[in-house]
Formats: sequence, structure tokens, C-alpha cells
Amino acid sequence: MNGPSTFVHPAALCETTSVGEGTRIWAFAHVLQGAVIGASCNLCDHTYVEGGVVMGDRVTLKNGVAVWDGVVLHDDVFVGPNAVFTNDLVPRAAPHRTSPDALSRTIVEHGATIGANATIVCGSTIGAHALVGAGAVVTGDVPCHALVVGVPARQVGWICCCGARLTPPWSCPCGRDFATHGRGLAVVTVLRRR
Amino acid sequence: MNGPSTFVHPAALCETTSVGEGTRIWAFAHVLQGAVIGASCNLCDHTYVEGGVVMGDRVTLKNGVAVWDGVVLHDDVFVGPNAVFTNDLVPRAAPHRTSPDALSRTIVEHGATIGANATIVCGSTIGAHALVGAGAVVTGDVPCHALVVGVPARQVGWICCCGARLTPPWSCPCGRDFATHGRGLAVVTVLRRR
Amino acid sequence: MNGPSTFVHPAALCETTSVGEGTRIWAFAHVLQGAVIGASCNLCDHTYVEGGVVMGDRVTLKNGVAVWDGVVLHDDVFVGPNAVFTNDLVPRAAPHRTSPDALSRTIVEHGATIGANATIVCGSTIGAHALVGAGAVVTGDVPCHALVVGVPARQVGWICCCGARLTPPWSCPCGRDFATHGRGLAVVTVLRRR
Repeated sequence: MNGPSTFVHPAALCETTSVGEGTRIWAFAHVLQGAVIGASCNLCDHTYVEGGVVMGDRVTLKNGVAVWDGVVLHDDVFVGPNAVFTNDLVPRAAPHRTSPDALSRTIVEHGATIGANATIVCGSTIGAHALVGAGAVVTGDVPCHALVVGVPARQVGWICCCGARLTPPWSCPCGRDFATHGRGLAVVTVLRRR
Repeated sequence: MNGPSTFVHPAALCETTSVGEGTRIWAFAHVLQGAVIGASCNLCDHTYVEGGVVMGDRVTLKNGVAVWDGVVLHDDVFVGPNAVFTNDLVPRAAPHRTSPDALSRTIVEHGATIGANATIVCGSTIGAHALVGAGAVVTGDVPCHALVVGVPARQVGWICCCGARLTPPWSCPCGRDFATHGRGLAVVTVLRRR
Repeated sequence: MNGPSTFVHPAALCETTSVGEGTRIWAFAHVLQGAVIGASCNLCDHTYVEGGVVMGDRVTLKNGVAVWDGVVLHDDVFVGPNAVFTNDLVPRAAPHRTSPDALSRTIVEHGATIGANATIVCGSTIGAHALVGAGAVVTGDVPCHALVVGVPARQVGWICCCGARLTPPWSCPCGRDFATHGRGLAVVTVLRRR
């Protein structure tokens, strides 16, 4: 059941009963039955969430964003206006298909940002705290803390949780230290002495 | 008159009386008076169709797609979420124009797919069964069965009706054989012996 | 107070009282309290205007355009369908921020056009009568009368108020003569003898 502090704008349609405390759903948004939305999220005007979606806490969907079955948004994800997800690598009108729809996954990890009007081709994982630039077209995995831009998206740098650019030796003025971890970076010290 | 099996969501606005059987028009969609929509179409949330549009059967418009006067969608066309059509090559605010609006045409032929968040500059014809990649910007004609990607969109391959990539000698595992036809490909045998 | 000739579609939400004469606000559009909208504007379906926005006269917002606090649209600006503005250079979910939101400005000067599905990274000024091509991603200032395209957007030419391309010696068949002015062009004679 939706919490007492959940806000649903009178011009929104919210058909799920699993919306966390403090989440706001704005005008002309549409959340389908079955969707699970975390706490303190912000679903702006003209957003759309399918019924199989599970979304973490403190997720922001700016205007015009649709989240399809197969897309997973972890906590603290920010999705910019008119950014576009997909869940079908080769969408075709029904009669031409020879196999059932293979729904491809997209995972956006903790704290990542999808820039305004970016496009995420399904099958991709956007690593924690990565930042996809405005208008980029992502066609593969993005490492944690990577900054990617362009069409197709290419990595041009690294970025801290706080939004500052990172360079070796991977210490951010905000107090976080990083180390390489797999293909990406990971925080190793949050409360570094300065 | 709209058929008895036409579905219009209570939060949609459908002002035309020419919607085919089995077509569904979802929430916050708006279809203007005069539009002619085929049968078994699917117009998702936040779509928009102008009054001069003629659309074939089994067309899918995913969320946020607007179809303007001057855009023609043949049967079995799939338009991905937030894909954008245009009908004016040099749009300007009214007072600066020196000539009447010249409405440019866009034709999307049978079975073609416009990828998510793609942009179609008007004056283009998208050939039958072509596939425009996600986020591509189409600035000219696309041959039948071509796969185009990027900004501006360039052809990177060929694609079958079923969605599989095609290479010479142009036989798809799905059973279709192709031959070159003009600048594109065309099916020559649907029920090839395998 | 909104003028008597202001039109607000019954399915729109208009919460401001500062809308000029002859302005039309269409279905599923949402204008927040405090926004100041000029006269003879056209806010199409699914548009959105935040409460701190000030917009000139004769501005067109095609479908799906959102205008945020920090974006300034001068008179006679045309914004194409699903074009996207921004107001935060490094958007992040709230808990990761270490400083208050720094709202970045975007200024679109008199008579400029933002093409369909273009993206404007904030901090940019789009000069008077410039034209941003469909699908372009603008990451910096655009000179007056410049034509920019691509990702990131690069200048590929010059354009007249009337929409014609301009080349030296900067005289347009429409009757306007130009001279270089700063990084851009400016009209020097409107009623040239032909």
C-alpha cells in the first residue's frame, strides 16, 4: 500500500500500490499496476513506468522519461529529461517476428546519472556513479564512475560521486579517495584527512 | 466511425472518427480530428497525431512520439519511444518567414523501424523493413532493408524483416532470400527450402 | 492576469496568471505558477514550463519541450519537438551533492531556432537567428545567425532570419544585408534595393 506521505498529482495515474514514503508523482505521469517504486523518488510530469519495473529509493525521473519492463534503476539514480530506455534490440512490428520477444535488460547502478536526452540501448549496465552525457547514445556497458559522451558513447574521463572530474592519483577535493576496481573506480576512503 | 473493438483510454483524447478495429490509444495520447488510423495499431502514452495524418495497419507508436501532417506511416511500422519526426526543413517563428510554410514529406515504408530517440529530418523516405538505430539522425533517404546508425545516420549493414543481419549471398536463416533492388534489397523467396 | 484571448485547452494545466494575449496552451501542457509567458506564443501538447521562466512573445514550443528555471527564451524563438534544455551541468541524486545546486543559465536570443530533438547543455547562449540542427547537442555558445549541427554541435554555415543559407558577401535574396558582428553576423540593411 502506498504510504501516507506519498504524493500523487491529481492529473497523474498511479495504478500500483507499491510506492515508498515521500515519493512524488507529478502531472500526466502514469505508473502501471505492479510497479515497485522506492521511497523519496521524484517522478516528474509526463513520465511512465511499466508494471514490471523495480526502482530504488531517491530516484529522479525528469520529464518525459519512460521506464520499461527489463530496466532496473538502483538507489539514487538520476535520469535526465527525455532520456530514453529500450528493452528490445531489434524492435519490429509483430507480424515479422519469428521468435518471441526477447526482453533485454538494462541496469543502472547506484548513484549513476543518465544525461538529458541520452539513449540507452538495452543489454547495457551503467556502473555506479557513472555519468552519461547529455544526448549520448550508450551501446554497451559503462564502468563505475566513468564519464561517457557522444554517439556512440565513448569514455572521456572519470567522475566522483559529488560530480567533480577525477584524475590520478584519484583523490577528490570532496574527501573521497578512489582505486581502480575491475574496469572502473571504487571509493576506498570517504573521510580522508585533508 | 471508430470500430467497436477500438480502445481509447479514458485519459486520452481521440477527436477523429477514423480509427480501425483493434487499435488502442493510451493515456495522455491526443489524436486530432481528421486523422486516419489503421487497424490493430498501438498508440502509447503521450503520443500525438495531427489531423492530416494517414497511418496504416499494425503501426506502433511508442511513448512520446508525435506524427505531423506530411508524415506517412505504412503498415507494420514501428516507431520507438521519443523518436521525432519533422515537417519543416527550416522552422522559424512566423514573422521572419518570407514564403508560406513548405510542408516537407516523410514516408516510412512497410515494416520499417525507427529506433528509440531517433530524429527524422523531413524530405526523407525510410525504405521498407529498414531499421534506423536508436539515437540516429536521418538526413536523407534510407534504402529498403538498410540498417543505419549515427549522427548523421550512415548505413552499416542490411537487415531482414525478422530482424537478423543480412550478408551476401542474402539468405536469412528465417527462410527469406533477397536480391538487390534499386539501392536496397527485396525479398525474392519467402518459403525457401532449408 | 491572463488575457481574454488566451486559450488554455481543457486538458492543460495553467497555474500562472501571466500569459500574454493570443497565447495558446494545448492539451497535457503544464505551466507552473509564476511563469511569465509573452503574447501570441504557442505551447503545444505535453510541454512544461517551470515557475521561474520568462518567455518572450511569439515563442513556439513544439510537443514535449520542457523549459526549466534558468532558461530564457527571447521573442520569436522556435523550439522543435522533444528538444531538451538543462539547468544543471552535473546532475546527481541529492545525497551525493556536496554543494547547493548551481543553476546554470541558457539564453536563446531573438528569432533563434532549436531543431527537433536537439539538446542544449546549460551555460550556453544561442545567438539571435541562429539555427541548431535537428538532433544536435550544443555544448557552448552559438554565434548569431550560425547554423550548427552534430554531436557535439559544430558550425557548418550561416543562416538568414528568413531561413536561407548565407555566404559572402552576405546578401540574402530576401532583401537583408549582413555584416560580421563579434563572432556572428548582424543585419545591416533590411530594405536593400534589388
